[in-house]
Amino acid sequence: MLLYRYIAWRMLLPLPPGLSGPIFDSACKELRGVVGDDWVLTTDDRLASYADPYSPGVADEYAPSGAILPTSVEEIRSVLGIANRYGLPLWTVSLGRNYAYGGAAPCLKGSMILDLNRMRAIKVDAELAYAVVEPGVTYLDLYKFVQDNKYPLWIDCPDPGWGSVLGNTLEHGIGYTPYGDHAGHQCGMEVVLADGQVVRTGLGAMDGNPAWPLYKSSFGPSLDGLFMQSNFGVVSKIGVWLMPEPQTFSVVEMMFRREEDIAPMIDVLRVLRLDGTVPTATIANWMRIAAGNTTRAEWYDGKGALPHEAVERVIKGMGIGYWGMRFGLYGREKILARKREAVEEAFSRIDGVEMTVATYVRGEKVAPEHGTLAGIPSVDLMPLNWLGGAGAHIECPLVVPMRGAEFHDLYQRRTELFNNEGFDHYCGLTSTTPRSFINTGSIIFDHNNAEQCARARALGRTLIEDAHKRHLAGYRAHISEMDFVAAQFDFNDHAALRTYERLKDALDPGGVLSPGKQGIWPKALREAKDSGGRKP
Amino acid sequence: MLLYRYIAWRMLLPLPPGLSGPIFDSACKELRGVVGDDWVLTTDDRLASYADPYSPGVADEYAPSGAILPTSVEEIRSVLGIANRYGLPLWTVSLGRNYAYGGAAPCLKGSMILDLNRMRAIKVDAELAYAVVEPGVTYLDLYKFVQDNKYPLWIDCPDPGWGSVLGNTLEHGIGYTPYGDHAGHQCGMEVVLADGQVVRTGLGAMDGNPAWPLYKSSFGPSLDGLFMQSNFGVVSKIGVWLMPEPQTFSVVEMMFRREEDIAPMIDVLRVLRLDGTVPTATIANWMRIAAGNTTRAEWYDGKGALPHEAVERVIKGMGIGYWGMRFGLYGREKILARKREAVEEAFSRIDGVEMTVATYVRGEKVAPEHGTLAGIPSVDLMPLNWLGGAGAHIECPLVVPMRGAEFHDLYQRRTELFNNEGFDHYCGLTSTTPRSFINTGSIIFDHNNAEQCARARALGRTLIEDAHKRHLAGYRAHISEMDFVAAQFDFNDHAALRTYERLKDALDPGGVLSPGKQGIWPKALREAKDSGGRKP
Repeated sequence: MLLYRYIAWRMLLPLPPGLSGPIFDSACKELRGVVGDDWVLTTDDRLASYADPYSPGVADEYAPSGAILPTSVEEIRSVLGIANRYGLPLWTVSLGRNYAYGGAAPCLKGSMILDLNRMRAIKVDAELAYAVVEPGVTYLDLYKFVQDNKYPLWIDCPDPGWGSVLGNTLEHGIGYTPYGDHAGHQCGMEVVLADGQVVRTGLGAMDGNPAWPLYKSSFGPSLDGLFMQSNFGVVSKIGVWLMPEPQTFSVVEMMFRREEDIAPMIDVLRVLRLDGTVPTATIANWMRIAAGNTTRAEWYDGKGALPHEAVERVIKGMGIGYWGMRFGLYGREKILARKREAVEEAFSRIDGVEMTVATYVRGEKVAPEHGTLAGIPSVDLMPLNWLGGAGAHIECPLVVPMRGAEFHDLYQRRTELFNNEGFDHYCGLTSTTPRSFINTGSIIFDHNNAEQCARARALGRTLIEDAHKRHLAGYRAHISEMDFVAAQFDFNDHAALRTYERLKDALDPGGVLSPGKQGIWPKALREAKDSGGRKP
Repeated sequence: MLLYRYIAWRMLLPLPPGLSGPIFDSACKELRGVVGDDWVLTTDDRLASYADPYSPGVADEYAPSGAILPTSVEEIRSVLGIANRYGLPLWTVSLGRNYAYGGAAPCLKGSMILDLNRMRAIKVDAELAYAVVEPGVTYLDLYKFVQDNKYPLWIDCPDPGWGSVLGNTLEHGIGYTPYGDHAGHQCGMEVVLADGQVVRTGLGAMDGNPAWPLYKSSFGPSLDGLFMQSNFGVVSKIGVWLMPEPQTFSVVEMMFRREEDIAPMIDVLRVLRLDGTVPTATIANWMRIAAGNTTRAEWYDGKGALPHEAVERVIKGMGIGYWGMRFGLYGREKILARKREAVEEAFSRIDGVEMTVATYVRGEKVAPEHGTLAGIPSVDLMPLNWLGGAGAHIECPLVVPMRGAEFHDLYQRRTELFNNEGFDHYCGLTSTTPRSFINTGSIIFDHNNAEQCARARALGRTLIEDAHKRHLAGYRAHISEMDFVAAQFDFNDHAALRTYERLKDALDPGGVLSPGKQGIWPKALREAKDSGGRKP
């Protein structure tokens, strides 16, 4: 019976590196003792949901050996004790909805997924406008909790809202309200270190301190940043600031005709962002708008990227601009009226701009298309039907300065690179902070099409390499590109990565937590790599 | 000649712990080789400026052995190499103007001051509104640089402006404009680790990345928080966001009659802070106002704290309220007019409030008393003449939630504690973040009066202990109280401090950097303490 399982496994699922079947089985038996039989998953059917749904043809290289789902900090501590004794690598996910970056799949094949989705506690303080959430709380959960309790608060959510609030925040995720910089609006964190120590950051380092979710710093250093986009601990709880429901809310949407309008658009926006008139903004090129509503086949049937005249046809046919921009304005109606005037005046300098404004007063129903600007999570996934087939995307987002001409130049270059690989350039810019954009460049492809997968991967690499020539950096990366992106951070012979490695060794000497995440590998695997071993 | 110097030294100055006179001399000789003879100070007269000017009678216990003033990152690296070889503890200061918290004096007697005041480079980007500064740049320097270059930008400064921008930011210092949370407006950091490695945080980890001072996070963990209020590295450069000069600027000042008004004041302010109407605010009690302009002797000649009727006399005599509140409003005049209305309407609910508003348009000269609200640094030190003599103060600031009744209760308790030790309660509240206050409670005393020093120290302890009973924490502390405050952070048997110690050992294994800062001691000194040794 056991033998059969091993045979079935080896065909379907990898073992953790360095662990034999029987040893892994023994580890799983101990893990079952902690969380119960139902919550250690080692069969193919129960692990299916952990595969990267948008993998560009490399899913097998990132398959987990199993998954374990603890339900409390105490259980996490016990799991870590077992993992350290066996040398079992764990890949921590809150919910694993990190789509386009690998989903729930681990960097190191054969890692066991430490899935925290059963931890779902929510606490909200309506007066001081914050929530404390566990990893399993989705944006939909938090929204519902606030609504059910009739708290006069708004949440901020990405699209779609099915992901983990905590997970998204740790990954530097973004949304569309003034609270859209999720890491910037996190305050207070509880972390289980690899040795089972439970640490609370900031003022939470004092038992019962009521200001823990209110004030970010503390007496002494601030640790929160250490546990974001890293593998230094298992975050079991965070505080998240919430926005008081505004009296009025306006959605400003604009279309701009020409590609070159992007330069003045950015320069005008920068001034309004810096002086506080506009609290955040998103810009999309024609392709991002077109791919959301149509398919490529509707516009063009030739090979490769759409030629100029087809792009013109899309713009004309859909009645859109080359660029769209939108943002919300929030607050007292009297103030908002003045802000709308200022916005109108500033952007009217750009020839041909078309602006529409929708204004809602408190309590009014918000149109679905304006939902995320009001922190209303949707269940819709990003439309990925542009090329048909099994639509998928990978992301190679950059952080770029908010300077018009500089970005226009980068845009043209990236269009060339997308087109060279036969893809249309899908471009988004989100200004969650007033001096920079997150510049997404989604590569949409059919993940059942091997040729498209190969081209998507090649384009991803090229985009990262080309950005590096301009000294621009990725802000997140697909698991298969984490080492590659990490290697671009070259100041002083990769001093930052070497420092992360030092911290990794100090905080997780057994190297069990999410090996390889963001290019950070534990000592043993670094050494294996240096002698030509497993690490990519 | 040498012998004479040793004898003179031992009378005046301590040696670094564990180093003999000749060994220290040899270290100093090597250090002179790095920075030149003039920049290694080991004589009493040249070290005088490093003594804690407000020490409550304990200056001898915190005397340095010397000071070294490097002028570049390369020199810092060489100094660290020598310090590690000799086991020479270095106490890093930018300028050492950390008055009321120890000035430039070290926690560990006999440490050598690593004084970075000769590093004074400033770079400003007017378009993207940021500065990059080295440790020796004061607020006055930065202000002058911006003015001289006619950049349309405002800085944010504490009062007074002679301190280091970098130093104040690392200590979580605050100012009075919307950029008053200095740590919150820092972006990008260069750090020299104890082993001489130069690390750039955030996007600076990529050589030449233009978004380094624009976007706080990066690919991977964020290290900046590690190097604030800590001793994990020597920060040699930071990015600081600057505010675009507003079109209009209003100063709102209010007086409130009764002690109990503080509860509604806070509750009203919280709503206006959270909805973005008011960008920051400062509250002062009668004593903070009175001590700024008069002396105790003018009002009362009895012993101990002022009795109720004398407080009433002060309030009436000065024409002030029991409480004063003030803040700036910044932006387009049309928007400001609406904000002023909202503020007036909200606070008019509190009986007896008196409000005055001064409005400046761009370019108008700002009255000196409104300077810090416009980011204009002053050279005035805090008035400390309340009790006469050699006026000094120590600070035991807390972070408190922004809840009216809760704070009123705390205020009454702290008044009792101040009065029990014979001091008048000097209370300030600054809301640099919308959910919490920094609550300063300055203990003003004559530092030439041993009896007052003893009472000031006793009161400091009592305030910290009493706050802990309410689970409230200090946010900074005098060097003589750093261990005591650190010990209050008791969650999970001081898990945070134990984590800081782990990181300290990983990043500074030789333990040469600022031993004892914020209660963080290197391994050897922790062990000495455990066996009854030097550490307090």
